[in-house]
Amino acid sequence: MQVAFVLYPRFTGLDLIGPHDALNSLPDVEPVFVAESAGPVENESGTFSMVASSSFAEITEPEIVVVPGGLGHRDLDRHRALLEWLPRVHETTTWTTSVCTGSIMLAAAGLLEGAPATTHWLERDLLAEHGAEPVPDRVVRHGKIFTAAGVSSGIDMALTLIQEMYGTEAAQAVQLGIEYDPEPPVDAGSPEKAPKEIQELVRTAMTAQLTG
Amino acid sequence: MQVAFVLYPRFTGLDLIGPHDALNSLPDVEPVFVAESAGPVENESGTFSMVASSSFAEITEPEIVVVPGGLGHRDLDRHRALLEWLPRVHETTTWTTSVCTGSIMLAAAGLLEGAPATTHWLERDLLAEHGAEPVPDRVVRHGKIFTAAGVSSGIDMALTLIQEMYGTEAAQAVQLGIEYDPEPPVDAGSPEKAPKEIQELVRTAMTAQLTG
Repeated sequence: MQVAFVLYPRFTGLDLIGPHDALNSLPDVEPVFVAESAGPVENESGTFSMVASSSFAEITEPEIVVVPGGLGHRDLDRHRALLEWLPRVHETTTWTTSVCTGSIMLAAAGLLEGAPATTHWLERDLLAEHGAEPVPDRVVRHGKIFTAAGVSSGIDMALTLIQEMYGTEAAQAVQLGIEYDPEPPVDAGSPEKAPKEIQELVRTAMTAQLTG
Repeated sequence: MQVAFVLYPRFTGLDLIGPHDALNSLPDVEPVFVAESAGPVENESGTFSMVASSSFAEITEPEIVVVPGGLGHRDLDRHRALLEWLPRVHETTTWTTSVCTGSIMLAAAGLLEGAPATTHWLERDLLAEHGAEPVPDRVVRHGKIFTAAGVSSGIDMALTLIQEMYGTEAAQAVQLGIEYDPEPPVDAGSPEKAPKEIQELVRTAMTAQLTG
């Protein structure tokens, strides 16, 4: 089963590597990292590169697509190749998925018109502007499309997908393999749980990055 | 503050990218990906490469070191350069850290002699063979050394480190930024929680990979 992990300039690493390291535990998965052209692609802050092994042109019928978020989703003109590739491969995928603001890419590609979907909590309004119906859940399924909330939620999305495809025991085995038994030292992982001033701090910092 | 993320052949991606995407949210962090020589390094399954921007020789005084696990820790002869670099930089680090079987690298480098430490639950005995005292906790601190359990635990370790360095509000802000509000669909993330047969399944699959 070919899983296409999409790379584009200013992607967020954890959005891809969380699902990759979960899905990659399955014996019949063939991950492929795909971008407009093969070669290294820089993450959102330019702090590392991951290497795309294939171009969009080479990957025509992936069974699963995983689109990460990042800081590139407000400059969609730079992502024409991705926005053209997504509807094409979506026709034959078994599952089309996104993490974080990757759902804005799906929506901009026309795949979420009127559909319930999630994204990073800071970008719910933007997701609505692109025609989706934002839902404040961590993982949202709409037919064969799974969208996940911000960054780390991709791990939960991948486990949900594994449970759907292979059953509960497979999801348990993968969870145990990556020892996913979270123990964050604080409890502010969603806007509903974080103090108001922490929300404002994050909003200010992230808005500066998005527009910077 | 320079944070050296170590790459070596057959590393596990999430071990590094979890802590990176948490630490990288802090304004004064300068991440650097370092390996024996600069250039692409393949992950444990050969499914992707990350690019090392610097060689060990070039990074002499990082303030934080993050050593990932992977499948390379049973073939330590291939990691001489790393095992020589680690004690050298450890002399001046503020924090020396590991995720998953990265602690076996720290132990093999002589940094965990008689020290409490954690690792992937499957490799606790091996950690003891290298002189550490395995503790079945998710994050273990010993002086300036933080070790984390398997794979996904690096996110909790990074948040713990951020709380230690910058306080609770910083840890909350980073947690909210990466929307780390875990909701796994199953609850088998540790050997204490997983059914016995799931443990055996994972043990068999991982042992095959380690010796394969």
